[in-house]
Amino acid sequence: MKQFMNTRETLVTEAIEGMLRLGAGRLARLDGFPHIKVVVRTDWDRSKVALVSGGGSGHEPSHAGFVGRGMLTAAVCGEVFASPSVDAVLAGILAVTGKAGCLLIVKNYTGDRLNFGLAAERARARGLKVEMVIVDDDVALPDLPQARGVAGTLFVHKTAGALAEAGADLETVAQAARGIIDGVVSIGMSLDTCTIPGMAKEARIAPGKAELGLGIHGEAGIEQVDFTDARAAIEMVADRLAPHVGPGRHVALLNNLGSTTPLEMGVLAEELLRSRLGGQIGWMVGPAPLMTSLDMRGFSVSLLPVTPEIERALMAPVAPAAWPGCLPVGPVATLPLPDGLTPIQPLPSQSPATRALIEDCCAVLIAAEGDLNALDAKSGDGDTGSTLATAARALVAALDRLPLADQTQLYRAIGQELSQTMGGSSGVLLAIFFAAAGDASAGGRDMIGALRAGLDRIESVGGARPGDRTMIDALAPALGALAGGVGAAARAAREGADATARITRARAGRASYLAEGSLAGHNDPGAEAVARLFEHLARAGH
Amino acid sequence: MKQFMNTRETLVTEAIEGMLRLGAGRLARLDGFPHIKVVVRTDWDRSKVALVSGGGSGHEPSHAGFVGRGMLTAAVCGEVFASPSVDAVLAGILAVTGKAGCLLIVKNYTGDRLNFGLAAERARARGLKVEMVIVDDDVALPDLPQARGVAGTLFVHKTAGALAEAGADLETVAQAARGIIDGVVSIGMSLDTCTIPGMAKEARIAPGKAELGLGIHGEAGIEQVDFTDARAAIEMVADRLAPHVGPGRHVALLNNLGSTTPLEMGVLAEELLRSRLGGQIGWMVGPAPLMTSLDMRGFSVSLLPVTPEIERALMAPVAPAAWPGCLPVGPVATLPLPDGLTPIQPLPSQSPATRALIEDCCAVLIAAEGDLNALDAKSGDGDTGSTLATAARALVAALDRLPLADQTQLYRAIGQELSQTMGGSSGVLLAIFFAAAGDASAGGRDMIGALRAGLDRIESVGGARPGDRTMIDALAPALGALAGGVGAAARAAREGADATARITRARAGRASYLAEGSLAGHNDPGAEAVARLFEHLARAGH
Repeated sequence: MKQFMNTRETLVTEAIEGMLRLGAGRLARLDGFPHIKVVVRTDWDRSKVALVSGGGSGHEPSHAGFVGRGMLTAAVCGEVFASPSVDAVLAGILAVTGKAGCLLIVKNYTGDRLNFGLAAERARARGLKVEMVIVDDDVALPDLPQARGVAGTLFVHKTAGALAEAGADLETVAQAARGIIDGVVSIGMSLDTCTIPGMAKEARIAPGKAELGLGIHGEAGIEQVDFTDARAAIEMVADRLAPHVGPGRHVALLNNLGSTTPLEMGVLAEELLRSRLGGQIGWMVGPAPLMTSLDMRGFSVSLLPVTPEIERALMAPVAPAAWPGCLPVGPVATLPLPDGLTPIQPLPSQSPATRALIEDCCAVLIAAEGDLNALDAKSGDGDTGSTLATAARALVAALDRLPLADQTQLYRAIGQELSQTMGGSSGVLLAIFFAAAGDASAGGRDMIGALRAGLDRIESVGGARPGDRTMIDALAPALGALAGGVGAAARAAREGADATARITRARAGRASYLAEGSLAGHNDPGAEAVARLFEHLARAGH
Repeated sequence: MKQFMNTRETLVTEAIEGMLRLGAGRLARLDGFPHIKVVVRTDWDRSKVALVSGGGSGHEPSHAGFVGRGMLTAAVCGEVFASPSVDAVLAGILAVTGKAGCLLIVKNYTGDRLNFGLAAERARARGLKVEMVIVDDDVALPDLPQARGVAGTLFVHKTAGALAEAGADLETVAQAARGIIDGVVSIGMSLDTCTIPGMAKEARIAPGKAELGLGIHGEAGIEQVDFTDARAAIEMVADRLAPHVGPGRHVALLNNLGSTTPLEMGVLAEELLRSRLGGQIGWMVGPAPLMTSLDMRGFSVSLLPVTPEIERALMAPVAPAAWPGCLPVGPVATLPLPDGLTPIQPLPSQSPATRALIEDCCAVLIAAEGDLNALDAKSGDGDTGSTLATAARALVAALDRLPLADQTQLYRAIGQELSQTMGGSSGVLLAIFFAAAGDASAGGRDMIGALRAGLDRIESVGGARPGDRTMIDALAPALGALAGGVGAAARAAREGADATARITRARAGRASYLAEGSLAGHNDPGAEAVARLFEHLARAGH
């Protein structure tokens, strides 16, 4: 299995160093690498109760990502999924604990309990006040007295962090932490296992299956269930949580276990709030990666009943960017669609000359359908002729409702018609061309100026330039020559169109993906269409 | 492929709804689902320049996650990897644009350019001031004039957002955005393709390979390269970026393309700062998911030269929680290890009676090695006897340096010795037992009180209770009876140890994972050891 790491031995220390370089001077590590991996606040004067947590790595941003004002004072990091040593925990305690004492926040895994527990004894032997709480929020195994500690631990970090920051004493902070632990319940679900760095991934969860009731160390869930969709997944999770949820309003923590996409997490948030538990969820933390299990494609939901004190603590501002905030749940606000989406229908008006010009142009395009399709077939899907002919037929059919006597309104109306009747990017580009020409005309430009403004705009929006083998190769020289008469414009257009046969590499549009050389010898169909239009106009004496 | 969604058709709209329910009243959507998916600020009075961005979904938190004070005013969302319609973009523009006008920030993909471009024309036709900038930061393909827009777009959002929030006019905001676009370069790398919702994953990148120069829509990178480790990956990325990087200090944006773990992203941050480009990187945004490509296991690096104006804009506070901040890069701060990690060595002292007691106890444990191993083999790995005997031998060897005449110091010293010589959780638990007994003794408790304090502590730290089939089943009754003499304690310990043979289900420790019934008929080895100790002490008349 591939991972962005150098060696397993340096994975955790390098990641910590990377984080600390961006610590903005507020974070440091103890000088004990690689054995002692402790991240501490430097903006800390030991006058308040210190909060120390930690455990194995692989759960980022837990725990080092939550070190900072308002949350943890120190995080003691083990190797991936392995408890840190007693010495490492003791170093963390000693580094941050003053007279106010220290609360250890430990998840209920034997290694963590023992190593944090012995470190606490050692710190006490040195005269420090140390309390320890053990988080056991996982309800996956209802009859096991040793429930695991999972993402609900974040509620303990946040609540105790707010109290400690506010200057509460150790007894108060520890009592509040125990209250949170009594109240919080969590359960996880995953579609796939996680990948232990440097090891092959265990193929444990079959297609169509999910695991319910997972820990955060890759251990199997308590059962494999059929997976159908997000709604059913949330229902199973709600089934497990509901027996533990009392009355009243709760805060939900929706945790991404690793590689669930933000889109999926958004759907899960929506389903959780729509679920039978949704009515009781007044606030949400996340969805966000908070306590991950490497790259596990899963999520967990934690629920905690909320008192006014807990609400205040959850809402208090903190320094760690990994804390996504605790947001009140509300209805989806929906604003009415703005006026103006439906284009203004111009008043029809008559101009026999303009009508004849448009009919003539359309007839040219309709007649060229087969030729242009044949040209396009050499570099595209052979539909340029049909696209233009279809649009031309529609435009002729629309003549009676066009403002033929008002040049400004007419450009805009033609753009509008083309955008509705022509598919593909050429339709959008021509619509932009005529809309921009209309704007320029409204601004006082004459016909040539207006058309050139349209050309400028499609160059800027479409990104094609002369020489890129597009219709611009005929249109740009034609408009450049138009001041000298339609005949000059027609000659320039033809020259430009024919020159496209010598361009061996398209630089815009779909043809840009073709191999060099496969374009040589035939004109770009868009440029050819433009040339035929101007040639016809010259012959007809418009 | 499994995903946490309900249907492909509702994936994006449900995810948007989930996000909006947590919008804290500051976000809304336009009433045009499912065709028009536009997220807008509600704390917006149209007096400032509006910033509208968007594109296909699947890049979360881009773009809806960046709507809010100081960044985008509206995000127009398409389906996964598909450009939103002209109508949707126009709705977004009309919903938020007042007299100050609107800047469209568009990534360089044909569909986005055209649809945003035409919507801009329509908005202009209604008299609105609309400018459009096109981000083309990807340097994967050096000779393609149409470079893609990728994660560097975030710099445009942030810089333009700060200026617009500060009240700059449209021309100023657009000019600043164009300046950012001129300066920013990006490139991506991935170990695996992304999974299009509802479709099977394309197996395109072989083991041992990575793709360099990827877009964000699952299209193949410009080349497949050998993948060795994080350092080499960053070197390849630096190779591509370096030719585009001028002198002076830059800000780096380190983007998680989807399912790279935070640990890996930390390593990549460290390697980037160590790379040849690192000396020029004065600030970093991320590592964080900023513009993802669904669940792609990859990253991208964007670099932008920084002027004082750009620095101010990048640092300005914003509402969207998805913006991780722009942090100054500094050295890793390292604090010395605290004093006190090395335990205080107590002064040795002599007490023949205590010495004899310890020697006796140790002899009992050494003699019981085989029996206890045999008991343990029925429920564990058969090493309890050897673990205890090894520790006992080490304790005897340490007698000359123990403070035998000082009960408080002696408890602590024994705890210290055991923690160094006994492996596994039982060693840690006994160390905790004696350390806590030492604390209690220091606090004035007598021997029985001190030992009971030790027992309380290991119950609390280890989580085992009487009846859980551990040594506590003998130790707790023995200490309870000890006030009545060692004989009474021995009888209680024996009764407790023998009772463990009738416990069919362990509730703590490794044996708790065994099937019910497999434990019946033999004593717990830890409890048996305690019983033998007390029985010996009673016989010896201590």
